[in-house]
Amino acid sequence: MHLAELSRRTGVSVPSIKFYLREGLIPPGVPVSARKSEYDEEHVRRLRLVRAMLTVGGMSVGQARDVLAVADDPAFTRHERLGIAQYMLPPKVTVPEPDDEGRAAWDAVRGQICEELRALGWRFQDGAPALDVLTRSVLTLQELGYETPIEQFRRYAAAIRPIAEAEYATITQYEVLEEAIEATVAYTVLVEPILLALRRLAHEDVSSRLHYGDEGEVRRA
Amino acid sequence: MHLAELSRRTGVSVPSIKFYLREGLIPPGVPVSARKSEYDEEHVRRLRLVRAMLTVGGMSVGQARDVLAVADDPAFTRHERLGIAQYMLPPKVTVPEPDDEGRAAWDAVRGQICEELRALGWRFQDGAPALDVLTRSVLTLQELGYETPIEQFRRYAAAIRPIAEAEYATITQYEVLEEAIEATVAYTVLVEPILLALRRLAHEDVSSRLHYGDEGEVRRA
Repeated sequence: MHLAELSRRTGVSVPSIKFYLREGLIPPGVPVSARKSEYDEEHVRRLRLVRAMLTVGGMSVGQARDVLAVADDPAFTRHERLGIAQYMLPPKVTVPEPDDEGRAAWDAVRGQICEELRALGWRFQDGAPALDVLTRSVLTLQELGYETPIEQFRRYAAAIRPIAEAEYATITQYEVLEEAIEATVAYTVLVEPILLALRRLAHEDVSSRLHYGDEGEVRRA
Repeated sequence: MHLAELSRRTGVSVPSIKFYLREGLIPPGVPVSARKSEYDEEHVRRLRLVRAMLTVGGMSVGQARDVLAVADDPAFTRHERLGIAQYMLPPKVTVPEPDDEGRAAWDAVRGQICEELRALGWRFQDGAPALDVLTRSVLTLQELGYETPIEQFRRYAAAIRPIAEAEYATITQYEVLEEAIEATVAYTVLVEPILLALRRLAHEDVSSRLHYGDEGEVRRA
């Protein structure tokens, strides 16, 4: 197919496709004349993945290139090739510099979190970015005077675990690596607001029952 | 206490306190001389709440003022006075304008979500901002070609529900309204990244077991 058809198939504009080609995010087509190249299904898949990483995923071009480099390198396992995509997704949390006074508190909380999750049998890399997100949130709660008791943390982990298992069963249905990575990006990023919005609605329901009783009417907005 | 003591007690700088006073976010102190005023525990609580809304909560001064207006108005129930704080917290999602072609799809998805949650017995206002977040996420997934089957949606709701109930039991321990609102802001905003980070770590664990087996080693980062 020509460039215009590739654009139509993927919903990505021709200027954007040309930009991705220049940046090396998608491989060049096969030249058929001085000014035209031919593209195939491989380009469609790669373009969908690139779009998902840059738009929904909020990655930089450099981060997307890192993901693709690992995805294209057979020396990595499928687990690693999918995992790199998740690791590149925002939010990134800034870790205090060494020798900073806050560094000791940071390391202590991060260590406790790792220990607790490993005690639950969870396996993850020491460098998983999500550990920094957890550490930052727990420390900020503590700074505001709120404790996060370990029982509460375990309850969160136990509630989230079956969600992740069911979602991963969906991801594994994509046999083509590009499609699996794209699904990883889309589900990771787009299901996050769904979970948080459901939590807020559940809070509203619980509060409503507490204040008005199970039979009470919902009052004005 | 004087302004300096109020600053020390709350960790809010004197210039920030003066700004909040000018904006009417905290009530004036009792004048004790031409240039000094006296502040009390009421100011400490209100200042902590204002800080939580503006920093952790990411609210604008106008939004914080709206929350305080409802909090100070005894015509509202406690449920409503706590709920307004949650409604003002980001993210806010933009709803398509009427007559837009996308409006029909928006309304259809939003209606399905409401119907499904009400069928589960959840009670919430039709105008709950979280409904817009859900609608936007489901529509974006659909635009990318991903379906969100109703069973998956129910699984998310079922997993989130006990979390919300346990959290709300914590919120209700704060009898003073300002403290309860501050806790609502802090827990709503700061526990959100905790849940999402746990989900990402759980994905990593599930993927690791799938690719290397339950006994396998975690490979390189």
